[in-house]
Amino acid sequence: MSAQFKGIISYPVTPFEKASGKVDLLAVRGLIDRLVARGSHGIAPLGSTGESTYLDDSEWDAVAEASIKQVNKRLPVIVGISDLTTRNAVRKAKFAEAAGADAVMVLPVSYWKLSDEEIFRHYATISDAVGVPIMVYNNPATSGVDMKPELIVRIVKEIENATMVKESSGDIQRMHTLMQLSDGGISLFNGSNPLALEAFAAGAIGWCTAAPNLIPDWPMALYETCAAGDMKRARDVFYAQLSILRFIVQGGLPTTIKAGLGLRGFEAGAPRSPLLPLGTAGIKSLETMLKAIDSRSLSEQ
Amino acid sequence: MSAQFKGIISYPVTPFEKASGKVDLLAVRGLIDRLVARGSHGIAPLGSTGESTYLDDSEWDAVAEASIKQVNKRLPVIVGISDLTTRNAVRKAKFAEAAGADAVMVLPVSYWKLSDEEIFRHYATISDAVGVPIMVYNNPATSGVDMKPELIVRIVKEIENATMVKESSGDIQRMHTLMQLSDGGISLFNGSNPLALEAFAAGAIGWCTAAPNLIPDWPMALYETCAAGDMKRARDVFYAQLSILRFIVQGGLPTTIKAGLGLRGFEAGAPRSPLLPLGTAGIKSLETMLKAIDSRSLSEQ
Amino acid sequence: MSAQFKGIISYPVTPFEKASGKVDLLAVRGLIDRLVARGSHGIAPLGSTGESTYLDDSEWDAVAEASIKQVNKRLPVIVGISDLTTRNAVRKAKFAEAAGADAVMVLPVSYWKLSDEEIFRHYATISDAVGVPIMVYNNPATSGVDMKPELIVRIVKEIENATMVKESSGDIQRMHTLMQLSDGGISLFNGSNPLALEAFAAGAIGWCTAAPNLIPDWPMALYETCAAGDMKRARDVFYAQLSILRFIVQGGLPTTIKAGLGLRGFEAGAPRSPLLPLGTAGIKSLETMLKAIDSRSLSEQ
Amino acid sequence: MSAQFKGIISYPVTPFEKASGKVDLLAVRGLIDRLVARGSHGIAPLGSTGESTYLDDSEWDAVAEASIKQVNKRLPVIVGISDLTTRNAVRKAKFAEAAGADAVMVLPVSYWKLSDEEIFRHYATISDAVGVPIMVYNNPATSGVDMKPELIVRIVKEIENATMVKESSGDIQRMHTLMQLSDGGISLFNGSNPLALEAFAAGAIGWCTAAPNLIPDWPMALYETCAAGDMKRARDVFYAQLSILRFIVQGGLPTTIKAGLGLRGFEAGAPRSPLLPLGTAGIKSLETMLKAIDSRSLSEQ
Repeated sequence: MSAQFKGIISYPVTPFEKASGKVDLLAVRGLIDRLVARGSHGIAPLGSTGESTYLDDSEWDAVAEASIKQVNKRLPVIVGISDLTTRNAVRKAKFAEAAGADAVMVLPVSYWKLSDEEIFRHYATISDAVGVPIMVYNNPATSGVDMKPELIVRIVKEIENATMVKESSGDIQRMHTLMQLSDGGISLFNGSNPLALEAFAAGAIGWCTAAPNLIPDWPMALYETCAAGDMKRARDVFYAQLSILRFIVQGGLPTTIKAGLGLRGFEAGAPRSPLLPLGTAGIKSLETMLKAIDSRSLSEQ
Repeated sequence: MSAQFKGIISYPVTPFEKASGKVDLLAVRGLIDRLVARGSHGIAPLGSTGESTYLDDSEWDAVAEASIKQVNKRLPVIVGISDLTTRNAVRKAKFAEAAGADAVMVLPVSYWKLSDEEIFRHYATISDAVGVPIMVYNNPATSGVDMKPELIVRIVKEIENATMVKESSGDIQRMHTLMQLSDGGISLFNGSNPLALEAFAAGAIGWCTAAPNLIPDWPMALYETCAAGDMKRARDVFYAQLSILRFIVQGGLPTTIKAGLGLRGFEAGAPRSPLLPLGTAGIKSLETMLKAIDSRSLSEQ
Repeated sequence: MSAQFKGIISYPVTPFEKASGKVDLLAVRGLIDRLVARGSHGIAPLGSTGESTYLDDSEWDAVAEASIKQVNKRLPVIVGISDLTTRNAVRKAKFAEAAGADAVMVLPVSYWKLSDEEIFRHYATISDAVGVPIMVYNNPATSGVDMKPELIVRIVKEIENATMVKESSGDIQRMHTLMQLSDGGISLFNGSNPLALEAFAAGAIGWCTAAPNLIPDWPMALYETCAAGDMKRARDVFYAQLSILRFIVQGGLPTTIKAGLGLRGFEAGAPRSPLLPLGTAGIKSLETMLKAIDSRSLSEQ
Repeated sequence: MSAQFKGIISYPVTPFEKASGKVDLLAVRGLIDRLVARGSHGIAPLGSTGESTYLDDSEWDAVAEASIKQVNKRLPVIVGISDLTTRNAVRKAKFAEAAGADAVMVLPVSYWKLSDEEIFRHYATISDAVGVPIMVYNNPATSGVDMKPELIVRIVKEIENATMVKESSGDIQRMHTLMQLSDGGISLFNGSNPLALEAFAAGAIGWCTAAPNLIPDWPMALYETCAAGDMKRARDVFYAQLSILRFIVQGGLPTTIKAGLGLRGFEAGAPRSPLLPLGTAGIKSLETMLKAIDSRSLSEQ
């Protein structure tokens, strides 16, 4: 079932209307179409980039529904589920499944630190409630929860729907351990943009990234050169886009991607307060980087 | 206005009904009465201990209202406001003020890291919306936001209602810097239980703590010996309760305090899932520690 | 035996001749006399401040001998022993004992990380070789070795000569644990200058510090107010000197203390290369701070 | 000049005589011959693995001389220089050059933290004293000095003999930054064994490693597959040896490599106290891993 996911999984941002700050569902659909049209292997709405934790429940439901409908089976859709309570995480997962999601990507988030057992039960409870595959997602920097490889492998082995793993800690040694503990049998996705080259070298089968919002050809080219096993060309393709990958991560993905979409002519509004829009200097830097990469030809890499 | 706060500010947990998991408002009121009766200088509902981030909006409102009403002006009440969006933090602060809160304690929480400017505006926006004093609250371990002393002092100097600071990082050097940057003029509260002795030594005027739920006399005795400037007796009083202070922090305050309340004969239910109730071994340890401290006489310290 | 140590243990720097960079034994003796004359409870040559790890063996021996001789039993002397090899640490400890040291302060240093067993044997081997008391010294920031409280307490319990502990990690919780694990029975010295107030509050009986080189009255006053249990006056005395304590630590003790001695009219030369002398801006800051504290009267604190 | 270095640079341990603990020069020479015979692109005596910081000056000189003589121009030799004082680092560098070293690998080590300026001058002073190329070596975990990429690139650009860089922090992002700041023009060597695959992917031209003491074919095969740009085969070759690479790093290189050499039938003695020989359980684990890898055929990877 999960075998359908691999390659470049693109995260849309969640556009807000400029004046009201409300979710802009028209723009949600427009952005989905852009991402599908320009090349992705899958779409992941309501991830970190999608500001999902900043939405109230009705907003969340509306974005999930609109996104899945708009993809309309052209690509597999995996919906992000991050909620402080298991109760509401289950509600969202069921909603996503009912709305036609092909899979859910579950990120436990914490206020109080979670024990391994608490994390395990969180996944087990969600798995019991839905039939779609679950991507186990580790992103300690944003979620406050750090799942060690041993726990992740236990979850994948013991929880039925947990069939994929996304590692966003940025620690390549975690990926090594995941590969070793599973004898290479794990479906591993990378979620750390500046680690994209090495994650593929280490055996990741996919890269979940917001970069396709701005430079769709380049992540795709990195995936393809790596899938072909061409280390030298992959290195060139990677370094060509690295500055942008770092920039969008360091400035916060919703903030920088929304600014970059603006530069690309797509109005996605501001990130939700307390997040502020990217400042003038940041916009200028990003513009310079986008111009630089646009002037390069992929075929010359 | 904020001068009314000092000494021991007690955090109630938020009790849930055992079967349904719903907020148990009767128990909320019962616990408030316990805390008031056994000695506190202030009550802080909906703090970290109160699982406020695990409540939905209507639950949050109900707890805020019931708590303030139950205190009924016997003590000053400061209501915790931690919300990912500024919009909802403002809503909660206004609700608390309308319900009669004497102050609000604002903890910025993050999914995407916040810049100093984003944090500053979060406080400024809340301050513009209410008239009650604001306690600036730093607790990086739970909130994912770490406010350096320089930022905290800027907030206190520039934002009108921001008149108090609660530091929970556990780093005594932060308190030194806060005192130095404000020439000792800051109203500093400590929120790190295992640092209680040294925070008072360094100049804190109060201690926000959940310990009074279980051992009300001991935090009070520490405050009083410190207020009297008696370093030797304060040390004895502190070491007598240190094991319990560490235990409740390490196991997570809602988890351990709810277990301890059960041992004290007050049923507060389980913490909300994914949080699990304290395990059998933990309950046994806590019981042993409570028996040990109950057998000690404060007058012998 | 170790009961003789308590209070303010002063670290002299090791002066070098300006032109040759050689150890300046005349200045070594002069500095010892200054420290003894202006008030200390003990002298600790060849500590971190004494650049002991930058001396070759013959230099080290000469400084140890000259220092002990110059103190001439006026105060107890504890000689610092930090060496990568156990073999040379033993040699130095025996030399110090033969030269008349009252105790040795042993800091394990590492290139390759040491296991607890390796650290334990290092202490045991030195203890077997000498008859004087050993101060177990933890200073992870400089030595690369971090001894947890559990290991320190084991060393003190099982190794005969190990009777004192100096904790320089700056983590007050380590001191709490040392006190708890030893039921308050440990002879605890603080080595973190900016933690001096709180370490005394937590139960330290002494403070090993280079500050007396520059401001001898103030560390002594802090010790005395703390020994008297006067928390309020101790706080005032502490904050009065805190900026200087932080400055000398942040700039590196040999670097800043040598610069400060120059400002005090005592020529101690430069620290040994690659260490550089304090720059002009740093000297100016230090001068301002020294003038400020000199203008304050201790009796007004 | 430095172009001669690339590929697998092997670190010999420094063998000690079992009874006396003295340097075993006969074994030094025997080990050099083993490493040369079994395939390396260069030899690096007196590195971290060679316990150089645990040797006294005369021992160090003897090992440097014997090693260079024994290689006898069959391969380029780069001698490790790590000393707390610039003075003695210069002395060693000059000694190595006079003895015929092709290059020196300079690792600043610290007791007191070094500023960027202090580190820069350390390199500049050594460069002024010798004519051979210098490899700038960053290894914060052992040396206590962490050189950021910006500083490293400044050293390489401004100091004449500094022509190569060895990064052992294990942080792949450092390598990215080094490549970016130098426009790919830096001669980058990796010193973190568990990062070997990804470092080559990111553009390292060599790998400095002690692994050839135990499994000479495997590091060589990784280098060759990476040099050929074959990402898939490189991945297989890497994972086949990863457990051993991690084991030798986690247990400390001198400790584990000496144990492994014993298992390989080459007696190198114990590491120098306080370092202890590998324990029985560790030896058993290592033996199992060596057997497992010996049973694999490289041609099947």
